[in-house]
Amino acid sequence: MRGLVVGRFQPYHSGHHQAIKNILGEVDELVIVIGSTQKSYERENPFTAGERIEMISEALKKDKLFGACFLVPIADVGENAVWTKKVRSHCPRFDVVYSNNPLVKQLFEGEGIQSKPMVSKLKDIDSTQVRKLMLSNGEWRKLLPKPVVDYLSSIKAVERMKAIAKNEEKF
Amino acid sequence: MRGLVVGRFQPYHSGHHQAIKNILGEVDELVIVIGSTQKSYERENPFTAGERIEMISEALKKDKLFGACFLVPIADVGENAVWTKKVRSHCPRFDVVYSNNPLVKQLFEGEGIQSKPMVSKLKDIDSTQVRKLMLSNGEWRKLLPKPVVDYLSSIKAVERMKAIAKNEEKF
Amino acid sequence: MRGLVVGRFQPYHSGHHQAIKNILGEVDELVIVIGSTQKSYERENPFTAGERIEMISEALKKDKLFGACFLVPIADVGENAVWTKKVRSHCPRFDVVYSNNPLVKQLFEGEGIQSKPMVSKLKDIDSTQVRKLMLSNGEWRKLLPKPVVDYLSSIKAVERMKAIAKNEEKF
Amino acid sequence: MRGLVVGRFQPYHSGHHQAIKNILGEVDELVIVIGSTQKSYERENPFTAGERIEMISEALKKDKLFGACFLVPIADVGENAVWTKKVRSHCPRFDVVYSNNPLVKQLFEGEGIQSKPMVSKLKDIDSTQVRKLMLSNGEWRKLLPKPVVDYLSSIKAVERMKAIAKNEEKF
Amino acid sequence: MRGLVVGRFQPYHSGHHQAIKNILGEVDELVIVIGSTQKSYERENPFTAGERIEMISEALKKDKLFGACFLVPIADVGENAVWTKKVRSHCPRFDVVYSNNPLVKQLFEGEGIQSKPMVSKLKDIDSTQVRKLMLSNGEWRKLLPKPVVDYLSSIKAVERMKAIAKNEEKF
Amino acid sequence: MRGLVVGRFQPYHSGHHQAIKNILGEVDELVIVIGSTQKSYERENPFTAGERIEMISEALKKDKLFGACFLVPIADVGENAVWTKKVRSHCPRFDVVYSNNPLVKQLFEGEGIQSKPMVSKLKDIDSTQVRKLMLSNGEWRKLLPKPVVDYLSSIKAVERMKAIAKNEEKF
Repeated sequence: MRGLVVGRFQPYHSGHHQAIKNILGEVDELVIVIGSTQKSYERENPFTAGERIEMISEALKKDKLFGACFLVPIADVGENAVWTKKVRSHCPRFDVVYSNNPLVKQLFEGEGIQSKPMVSKLKDIDSTQVRKLMLSNGEWRKLLPKPVVDYLSSIKAVERMKAIAKNEEKF
Repeated sequence: MRGLVVGRFQPYHSGHHQAIKNILGEVDELVIVIGSTQKSYERENPFTAGERIEMISEALKKDKLFGACFLVPIADVGENAVWTKKVRSHCPRFDVVYSNNPLVKQLFEGEGIQSKPMVSKLKDIDSTQVRKLMLSNGEWRKLLPKPVVDYLSSIKAVERMKAIAKNEEKF
Repeated sequence: MRGLVVGRFQPYHSGHHQAIKNILGEVDELVIVIGSTQKSYERENPFTAGERIEMISEALKKDKLFGACFLVPIADVGENAVWTKKVRSHCPRFDVVYSNNPLVKQLFEGEGIQSKPMVSKLKDIDSTQVRKLMLSNGEWRKLLPKPVVDYLSSIKAVERMKAIAKNEEKF
Repeated sequence: MRGLVVGRFQPYHSGHHQAIKNILGEVDELVIVIGSTQKSYERENPFTAGERIEMISEALKKDKLFGACFLVPIADVGENAVWTKKVRSHCPRFDVVYSNNPLVKQLFEGEGIQSKPMVSKLKDIDSTQVRKLMLSNGEWRKLLPKPVVDYLSSIKAVERMKAIAKNEEKF
Repeated sequence: MRGLVVGRFQPYHSGHHQAIKNILGEVDELVIVIGSTQKSYERENPFTAGERIEMISEALKKDKLFGACFLVPIADVGENAVWTKKVRSHCPRFDVVYSNNPLVKQLFEGEGIQSKPMVSKLKDIDSTQVRKLMLSNGEWRKLLPKPVVDYLSSIKAVERMKAIAKNEEKF
Repeated sequence: MRGLVVGRFQPYHSGHHQAIKNILGEVDELVIVIGSTQKSYERENPFTAGERIEMISEALKKDKLFGACFLVPIADVGENAVWTKKVRSHCPRFDVVYSNNPLVKQLFEGEGIQSKPMVSKLKDIDSTQVRKLMLSNGEWRKLLPKPVVDYLSSIKAVERMKAIAKNEEKF
């Protein structure tokens, strides 16, 4: 049995990681769709698709879960009604979608694909909060898997985010 | 003589319908451009182009006006200066644009196309207000032509809009 | 019951028209998808979406069939696997696809939509042949419904096609 | 030595012009990238790429600087990480980027291109402020080079901006 | 050390697989870019991105190589000069590109990335030849890793390719 | 009076240059549209927009014509009927189009813009021929303005074109 989860992972945090570990207790393999890959170096989307692949894979490898996962970056299409079809066309086939988002559930159920809730003990972490803490020199490191913290340090993530925050507009 | 009106029709309400009936008293045929077709399943744009075609055509059929209309869905182009040209290229030729929007008037007049105001006795209805009432279980049904109300019920529109509202972000 | 046909209609000829009349003997309403709307003023695609709407509607009106049809222009998406979904999202719902194209049949059947063959007594007409005859001053007028011939004359179609043929490249 | 500056120039004001004159004291030639060319007739982006070329070139010609500049309009790409590459591919080669924007600096330095700050005595002018004054019949004319003021009058810029402001949404 | 290879993999054959096994003798990890993901159900591009991910991963898993690879689907950008930047932005960082294509080598070397030739004992296999054999009921099964043959059978690949071949044009 | 010419300039040759010099005898200023800027590193489109700007400007500077010209790179839009509008929106206003292409003439005349033939004593040079000679080590240098030859040497144009020719497909 193969599951699918969708996220932007800006950045990948311990809430994501815990939920994915839980799902991997239920399914044999998991497709992790990394969404909005056409966005990067923006306030809400600081990291490139490649960097997000790297964050997630480092965390998965540490827990020996990388070999059970497919990491699939997918750019947005304008139209949500068409987006589920693009996901299906770009991913290996899957049996069930894990999501707490009622829209995602509706869209996939409209395609005849079953959905289940995502459960994480750490569900009160969200990426917006993590990005805020990173900008304010807060305690963000506690909220991310250790390999992600190390990776973000190696690419000077905080410095980049502050540069973006100072001037969102390119010009 | 052929007229043209432009709308997003999210959803098509009685203000739209009254204005279109008025215009059809002045012109033989009417091109109804359904704009922003690349958007759907979003808070401001809950319905697909196909669903909007269906709403409008049900209302027009009831009043025996469908055979005098062309329903033309058109996706946005980024650049407004180019958009009028796209409209002209995707629609059967037309003689006059009906609009109360000063920008639409300017853009078409810059192309040498005459514009006239849209008049509706029900002009205090707008789609934003309708969507709000739908989300809050308000009295939205009074503001829409009966066939549109029936159609929206058949596709469980309110349920969809609430799912979208709960979580705009896909992920 | 509502059917759907897909064509580029460059131009709309009597083979198309005969097939559509046949289908309208079987279904109540017909969605006519005008494909590749993003192409015009090219050798294989000389006419705009608006011009194609006009051709088809003139022919349908003459036979009092316009009020039973939805003419829906749809731009190509790169990916064929996603295209059927876009068609479904941009058209009013339909019950059956009429097509002789094995790929179209497969794609829609993959979405759970039934398909039937298109039958036309005039099936040996095709648009490529019509365009060739137009360029060579051949007997193209016999192959098109009379209202389409009149419309093409009114927009000086042959003159345009010769200009395009002389120099496909814009520069 | 050739420099590069990036701006949206909505509109081109005396702060831009002063900074460009300063840079032209340091470099032989200057590439002026006009960004977001896919936007026009919007509240934040009222002018087309062509109009912006015209404004800037009128101001440069008056000061006999036009022959030392390349005006290169470039549409946005979704992804900022890819945008610098597009700039490099669409512009004549350049040696140094002038920018006060930390993100632009980081992106170009990541490509191995040196950056310097832009200095203008008039740096407290910004385009947002100019647009506001234009809408409120304020003293905007003092903030723009004389040839730009004349050009904006000739295209009835204020009238257009008021039409846009009245109704941002097209429909 | 991490390498990168690029292919369309329509389909993934034993020449690809042998070359990838050879590279994995030289590097610790390999990024496999699956290109032209926006194409599917076309004569030259019969398989979706998801199907290609599945083919490749099945073959890699059989040889216990899946855990050392990143499979990254990337859509074409129009402009080749910008494409290398997109590859870098969508992939985890890599140290060396393996390619026999002089253009790919030039493009990456222009970005300061080293390239090495791809070596395969089976280098006389190419995807065009495989597709031809599939259409003509030839001996294609010998040219593909066993898990790919099984997968292609499970999705009725030959039947699909014949449907596409019969009528490339959608309409 | 301001004229406009359109070309892909792959590469800019003496036929182009002679024609432009002739036009500059008739008009005060000339807009030179560099088309298909989204293409580069392809067999038919080996050079980036930036490189083409550089070729043309070097040739114009040598003849002291650069200050009378606007070089405007414009990406293709799919639809030719919309393309003229995009040209008008991206260029400073112009009074007359110089072109020998009947389609370009028709499209601009449909917009109410006058066109004139381009005349060059060297009109038997075309870019396709130049590219062939470059690939075959023929006498291409005679067909290009001296500064363009020098520029092409400086970027190792022949070497690049041979790399592209060897393998058009990226993979």
